[in-house]
Amino acid sequence: MASKRIIPLLNRVLVKRVEMDKKTAGGLLLPGAKDSREAVVLAVGPGAVNVDGKKVDMSLKEGDKVLLPDFGGTEITDSEKTKLLLFREDDILAKLE
Amino acid sequence: MASKRIIPLLNRVLVKRVEMDKKTAGGLLLPGAKDSREAVVLAVGPGAVNVDGKKVDMSLKEGDKVLLPDFGGTEITDSEKTKLLLFREDDILAKLE
Amino acid sequence: MASKRIIPLLNRVLVKRVEMDKKTAGGLLLPGAKDSREAVVLAVGPGAVNVDGKKVDMSLKEGDKVLLPDFGGTEITDSEKTKLLLFREDDILAKLE
Amino acid sequence: MASKRIIPLLNRVLVKRVEMDKKTAGGLLLPGAKDSREAVVLAVGPGAVNVDGKKVDMSLKEGDKVLLPDFGGTEITDSEKTKLLLFREDDILAKLE
Amino acid sequence: MASKRIIPLLNRVLVKRVEMDKKTAGGLLLPGAKDSREAVVLAVGPGAVNVDGKKVDMSLKEGDKVLLPDFGGTEITDSEKTKLLLFREDDILAKLE
Amino acid sequence: MASKRIIPLLNRVLVKRVEMDKKTAGGLLLPGAKDSREAVVLAVGPGAVNVDGKKVDMSLKEGDKVLLPDFGGTEITDSEKTKLLLFREDDILAKLE
Amino acid sequence: MASKRIIPLLNRVLVKRVEMDKKTAGGLLLPGAKDSREAVVLAVGPGAVNVDGKKVDMSLKEGDKVLLPDFGGTEITDSEKTKLLLFREDDILAKLE
Repeated sequence: MASKRIIPLLNRVLVKRVEMDKKTAGGLLLPGAKDSREAVVLAVGPGAVNVDGKKVDMSLKEGDKVLLPDFGGTEITDSEKTKLLLFREDDILAKLE
Repeated sequence: MASKRIIPLLNRVLVKRVEMDKKTAGGLLLPGAKDSREAVVLAVGPGAVNVDGKKVDMSLKEGDKVLLPDFGGTEITDSEKTKLLLFREDDILAKLE
Repeated sequence: MASKRIIPLLNRVLVKRVEMDKKTAGGLLLPGAKDSREAVVLAVGPGAVNVDGKKVDMSLKEGDKVLLPDFGGTEITDSEKTKLLLFREDDILAKLE
Repeated sequence: MASKRIIPLLNRVLVKRVEMDKKTAGGLLLPGAKDSREAVVLAVGPGAVNVDGKKVDMSLKEGDKVLLPDFGGTEITDSEKTKLLLFREDDILAKLE
Repeated sequence: MASKRIIPLLNRVLVKRVEMDKKTAGGLLLPGAKDSREAVVLAVGPGAVNVDGKKVDMSLKEGDKVLLPDFGGTEITDSEKTKLLLFREDDILAKLE
Repeated sequence: MASKRIIPLLNRVLVKRVEMDKKTAGGLLLPGAKDSREAVVLAVGPGAVNVDGKKVDMSLKEGDKVLLPDFGGTEITDSEKTKLLLFREDDILAKLE
Repeated sequence: MASKRIIPLLNRVLVKRVEMDKKTAGGLLLPGAKDSREAVVLAVGPGAVNVDGKKVDMSLKEGDKVLLPDFGGTEITDSEKTKLLLFREDDILAKLE
């Protein structure tokens, strides 16, 4: 059954955590965070609407590597039981290159 | 008795949950959510009014498949005892294609 | 004694609940709501004032059938002991046709 | 001693409750409200200032009959021991004609 | 030692309570308020700055008689042990003439 | 070791309390405040940025004498163990001349 | 394994604490703060977006010495186990020269 495509609304960003190989951990950890804070962007929304009704462009795009905050975000399990997360773009801390 | 047509006001969206067939579940679940987060849009309002009094266009339309958050929304039982939900558009997480 | 005319201020809406005939209930109920959520608009205010001091037009008018939220509103008993309610227009969920 | 004239500031409204004759009560009561919600406007302020620094006109004027909310307002006893109330105009529910 | 001149900043107003002669009280009292709510304006600030960075003119000036709210304000004891109060202009209820 | 120069950011103001000689106290005290509320401005930031991104000019400058509120501010001990305070300009009550 | 470059988003600032040599401490301490409040800026974001959707320029840049508040910020441990911090620019107290 073809998996459904999730298209975030407004300034939301759909991400999937990048799992760290604990031994050769080269990942960025937040103190006390049980899982890695690194993720890859799967899809971005069209952008939020400001008080004048104009769209505010997104600065992230599909494929970007990002650093997640240690709170927030909505967890979604897709049809292949993969865990995804939806964040507002403002809550994402940084891009990783 | 003809069922009343519900026309959402401002940026509200009237939706009906898409029930998942538990065996061949292909639906999107939020952890701990007892029922499916997928729904279909039955009707949309004209749009919210911004600080300048101008209408902000809706991005959802009748027939769209959407992903609901795990909180919020007002539950309505229509005259045929069907359970519907009213959400503000900003609270709806994503479109599904 | 002639009943006083109540003219809502700003974006308030004066409504009267439409009582449902429990047997042939065709009304819209909110779960747990003891009385019907349907009401008819008796009068509307001139509209709220936005940050620029301009009036924002009302979208409801006298005679409209509406769906009330399950909270909020100010209850008034007029001189004929009729129970009326005052809501801000933003809080009214939908129009009913 | 001449009573002092009270000139409300910004969008405040000075009102005096209209006492109801309990027997031929024709007044508007709010459920549980011990005293009448009807009042007469004694004086209005010049109007609030919006974010651009411009004055927003008042919609009420001296002599208007109004319906008070069941909360809020600042109680003042003037030099003749008369009980007056100061409300922000936004908090007054309706005009009565 | 010359007393320091206090020049309020932004939209603050420096006031001194007008003490009421309890016997021939002609003052305005708020219920439960132990001291008089009448005061005289000693100095006013230049005005607040609105969102556009423009100054919003003050409506009160030195010498005005005003009615104080029953809460708020910052109490200052000047070098002659006189009790003064600093209020934001928005919090002052009315002018008295 | 040369002391570091502290340059406040945005609309912050760096101040140093003016210690009062308790006997010939001529200072301004706030009731219950253990130390004097008078201070001198050592440095001011460039100014806050308003919603349009424009800088809002500061009204205080180096050398001004000011009256501090009895709460707030961030305490800093500089390299010579001198106690300084950082306030947002909006929180400073008045200038003293 | 090459360490990842962290590029802050919006108006965030990536900083690294400047460790004080406790004996010849010349650093700025906040009362009760266990570690130094001085830090160096490693990277800055592009700037926040104001209500009109326009970018607000950053006032800090890579290499600046800054004074951190005693609360807030998100701690990150990079791949070389170095402790870094992400702050919103508005929360950083001052520049140090």
